[in-house]
Amino acid sequence: MKGAVLHAPRDVRFEERDVPRIFKPTDAIIRIAAACVCGSDLWPYRGIQPVTQPTPMGHEYCGIVEEVGSAVTSIRPGQFVIGSFFASDNTCPNCKAGYQSSCQQRELVGGAQASLLRVPLADGTLVATPDVPSDNLIPSLLTLSDVMGTGWFAADAANVRPGSTVAVVGDGAVGLLGVLSAKRMGAERIIAMSRHESRQKLAREFGATDIVTERGDDGVARIKQLTDGIGADSVLECVGTQESMMQAIHATRPGGFVGYVGVPHGVELSGEELFYSHVHLHGGPAPVRRFLPELIDLVWKGKINPGKVFDLTLPLPRVAEGYRAMDERRAIKSLLRP
Amino acid sequence: MKGAVLHAPRDVRFEERDVPRIFKPTDAIIRIAAACVCGSDLWPYRGIQPVTQPTPMGHEYCGIVEEVGSAVTSIRPGQFVIGSFFASDNTCPNCKAGYQSSCQQRELVGGAQASLLRVPLADGTLVATPDVPSDNLIPSLLTLSDVMGTGWFAADAANVRPGSTVAVVGDGAVGLLGVLSAKRMGAERIIAMSRHESRQKLAREFGATDIVTERGDDGVARIKQLTDGIGADSVLECVGTQESMMQAIHATRPGGFVGYVGVPHGVELSGEELFYSHVHLHGGPAPVRRFLPELIDLVWKGKINPGKVFDLTLPLPRVAEGYRAMDERRAIKSLLRP
Repeated sequence: MKGAVLHAPRDVRFEERDVPRIFKPTDAIIRIAAACVCGSDLWPYRGIQPVTQPTPMGHEYCGIVEEVGSAVTSIRPGQFVIGSFFASDNTCPNCKAGYQSSCQQRELVGGAQASLLRVPLADGTLVATPDVPSDNLIPSLLTLSDVMGTGWFAADAANVRPGSTVAVVGDGAVGLLGVLSAKRMGAERIIAMSRHESRQKLAREFGATDIVTERGDDGVARIKQLTDGIGADSVLECVGTQESMMQAIHATRPGGFVGYVGVPHGVELSGEELFYSHVHLHGGPAPVRRFLPELIDLVWKGKINPGKVFDLTLPLPRVAEGYRAMDERRAIKSLLRP
Repeated sequence: MKGAVLHAPRDVRFEERDVPRIFKPTDAIIRIAAACVCGSDLWPYRGIQPVTQPTPMGHEYCGIVEEVGSAVTSIRPGQFVIGSFFASDNTCPNCKAGYQSSCQQRELVGGAQASLLRVPLADGTLVATPDVPSDNLIPSLLTLSDVMGTGWFAADAANVRPGSTVAVVGDGAVGLLGVLSAKRMGAERIIAMSRHESRQKLAREFGATDIVTERGDDGVARIKQLTDGIGADSVLECVGTQESMMQAIHATRPGGFVGYVGVPHGVELSGEELFYSHVHLHGGPAPVRRFLPELIDLVWKGKINPGKVFDLTLPLPRVAEGYRAMDERRAIKSLLRP
């Protein structure tokens, strides 16, 4: 079997890998219907996160169950399933509290940019769709595995409510789907921060009412200007840098909510500054599993179409092009079809 | 008029000060019934916060209105009133959202360790009691001006609910009143972190069900042990140091809530660590004004008795002793009677 392997910064190869097999009785093997490149894959791709050994890439997946371990009871071969990038048992206290990405047994799923994938804790991790979907639904269903679930969690963590004024920091796929999520949750005003025309266009299509092109302090000043000097009720932080995090905190009104889902890289928060900002702060790796049933239902019924974030589709063997296009910001998100 | 003035670290003098006068038409002058020393007064007293000029001390107050400015309409001379350490208009968007300590017109109230005090924005800041209280109620009413309101906000920010498991970091007056607040909000289990017998005793009286004497990582391990390895639903951070903040974050279950009210001194939070902790973080200077009507009612009806935190009562001229006793942790909190 062939799959994507990262050998060194900017060196992704489509090469022979071991065929995944059932390793524990709780595992399942899935035949990948579609995979994609995640913004977080770009951290090691760019060398910001070290690459210590050849690493099979990809953690967003959906497809047909090929085989299940002897202990798997709720998933069966032939079903079309979606799972999170964190496998979870969905029964421990953290899972029951809705934080499956902090499951006591959690395991990272990896190597999904391939034709077959092993998913641990299959019963807790995978959710089957009502039927095998038609091909046109697959991009949207794939987003539920991470990027859409993460945008949704950002909006949920930022307490978006009907009538809220929301700002979104980051115009990557997560930020854009944060806009879609905020819209779906009833936000009245959604300010997207973006300086790229194609992304602004998609943000508007997803529900953004205002676009702010300024960044940093200027961006904050602009958001204050748009919100009677107070700041937004809810701000979604979808980048993970020091600048984006401070932009999010400063753009939030006192008593407002910051939902942060960009994996922080080198971010340090001053306790005193946070204290006087009076914001609520919540985030972390999205507990995608919590949202899967609801989001599958919304996609299935055609109520949301998050698959629009894929503006580049490639056959899996050309995976390296998918990374390159995203790295150079020529593509928002690359879809890969085995 | 005489009042307490801090000249340098550990140099508090009871000395002649200008008599406060109505300065703006929205001001009121109050004859202080009781004042006290706040844990936050100890930061400059200990020299951790610089003392750049002789500073009139005290920001917790209650008493009889002596005089009001021409624009004051809701408060009149003769009333017994309580106000917050932050004066607020109670009409701006931040006040309306319940964050009066981020009022767009906010002003720090200072110099309450004296016989008379000027309070700005009297209509928005002061709340009158139903009648002039009997003397025995005064200590409890005084706590509502800051320390009890702050403990209450810690529990509110930490989302304490009926049935919650709560941990409280800090056994100062705020932490102890955080215990009382959590109890009143229906917490089932309240773990107080304290190694001082008299404070443990008061914590138990206020509703603590467990005492943890260990600190830092050992304290966290003990709390995990008491909560099936998960951590507490809600943790109240009532100190403001790096150690106490990390203790609070680490003792909270994924998806749980940290309410932090200790003014942070030199606290730096790693974005990545916070991200993977999955906690909700909220705090800041307590919007005491939001809680005053409810807390006055509870004290008035004898349902709570937060005045028990005062274990030292001194005539105001001996204010320096009150600071010394708290600095040396011989007293939990010093009450001063003019």
